[in-house]
Amino acid sequence: MSGRLYGLGVGPGDPELITMKALRLLKAAPVVAYFVAKGKKGNAFGIIEAHLGDAQLRMPLVYPVTTEALEPPLCYETIISGFYDDASIAIADHLEAGRDVAVICEGDPFFYGSYMYLHDRLAARFEAEVVPGVCSMLGGVAVLGAPLVYRNQSLSVLSGVLPEDELKRRLEAADAAVVMKLGRNFDKVRRVLAELGLAKRALYVERATMANQRIVPLDEVEPMASPYFSLLVVPGEKWRA
Amino acid sequence: MSGRLYGLGVGPGDPELITMKALRLLKAAPVVAYFVAKGKKGNAFGIIEAHLGDAQLRMPLVYPVTTEALEPPLCYETIISGFYDDASIAIADHLEAGRDVAVICEGDPFFYGSYMYLHDRLAARFEAEVVPGVCSMLGGVAVLGAPLVYRNQSLSVLSGVLPEDELKRRLEAADAAVVMKLGRNFDKVRRVLAELGLAKRALYVERATMANQRIVPLDEVEPMASPYFSLLVVPGEKWRA
Repeated sequence: MSGRLYGLGVGPGDPELITMKALRLLKAAPVVAYFVAKGKKGNAFGIIEAHLGDAQLRMPLVYPVTTEALEPPLCYETIISGFYDDASIAIADHLEAGRDVAVICEGDPFFYGSYMYLHDRLAARFEAEVVPGVCSMLGGVAVLGAPLVYRNQSLSVLSGVLPEDELKRRLEAADAAVVMKLGRNFDKVRRVLAELGLAKRALYVERATMANQRIVPLDEVEPMASPYFSLLVVPGEKWRA
Repeated sequence: MSGRLYGLGVGPGDPELITMKALRLLKAAPVVAYFVAKGKKGNAFGIIEAHLGDAQLRMPLVYPVTTEALEPPLCYETIISGFYDDASIAIADHLEAGRDVAVICEGDPFFYGSYMYLHDRLAARFEAEVVPGVCSMLGGVAVLGAPLVYRNQSLSVLSGVLPEDELKRRLEAADAAVVMKLGRNFDKVRRVLAELGLAKRALYVERATMANQRIVPLDEVEPMASPYFSLLVVPGEKWRA
């Protein structure tokens, strides 16, 4: 009998924000896989490391590139696609041998998670179960003390990578918004918020719920020092019910 | 010394989807408050009931009305505002007496949760901490097996209560979308999805992760029987990385 594939959301960073279900399945998994940048330990792995036993096989899936901006003839899409293919084959070997594989995912597996690319390759052939997690967006608004959406407000979740005009159009139409993937895009996003008169309402947090979390006023953020795990939040207007 | 106010997300329905942190704070709280409809036990309370000890004070906050559509001279906004005022005063009494109060919230406290109205009234006077939870939206996509947003796709979270033209405009602009608060609005939302050619991509689930969860093909949903805790999801187009 084949093993089962699990995509386990382990939450936004604070190890205590893992769910009981993810923890139970994590501890029972003979193989624990996780994505990680070359030379790094991996955020998701750091969150759950303390719970692993000696008998559990650690299976790092090491990204072959650290940026999407590559010099030709290198092509991010081609390289990353081959990487996900290879990772899926390696995981499938364990599943075919009857071993369950838990892929641990920072935040939630289906909310911008790399697990999705494994799921799309494997879920048709093997039993797969996804355990949802606390996403970074909700970790962020919790530590900011900022209620996100009231009553029938619409929420837009946007990537800082979007072109400036699209960002502007989408932020203008939103009742409440969260901008993820800031990093080098921070200055562009801040400029758009200012143009729309939203800068005063916007809040910024780095590495929400992690040990090195930082909340910084928007106008004091050093644009080139904004890490990937940072968030901009425009909370919905308070509804004075 | 005053007590602390906690807004504890307890997840979308499966009791195992509570975080370790929410569980720890829940067990330590002398007063456990929860919103509930008249004559009901309350979904959030049902999720955590098994963890409570005899010494913990249960504090139900019973909604005075069950619908936003009231006959004049009744006015939902006035009634519900008075209700939140009264609930905040009752909670403040405990806090002033030095007792911590944990308000348990289905899903996440700041993602369309009633806790927000207490937080807005109390967080300036008392220490308040919010523990984020797995929201119903992510519980929904997990059980549907539907990765929600890839790479730089934008996500729109919408209320089914919105007028038909606004729903159409926002759904048309979205890369991926989740429509909450369906209930009586189901037929309107399904019609809009069909007009936009999105019906085939859309998925529907009732009471995701709860014991009585149901996944139903979109064209088989009985519009008048769709419960409040149902979701429509239009997942982002798969990115074949």
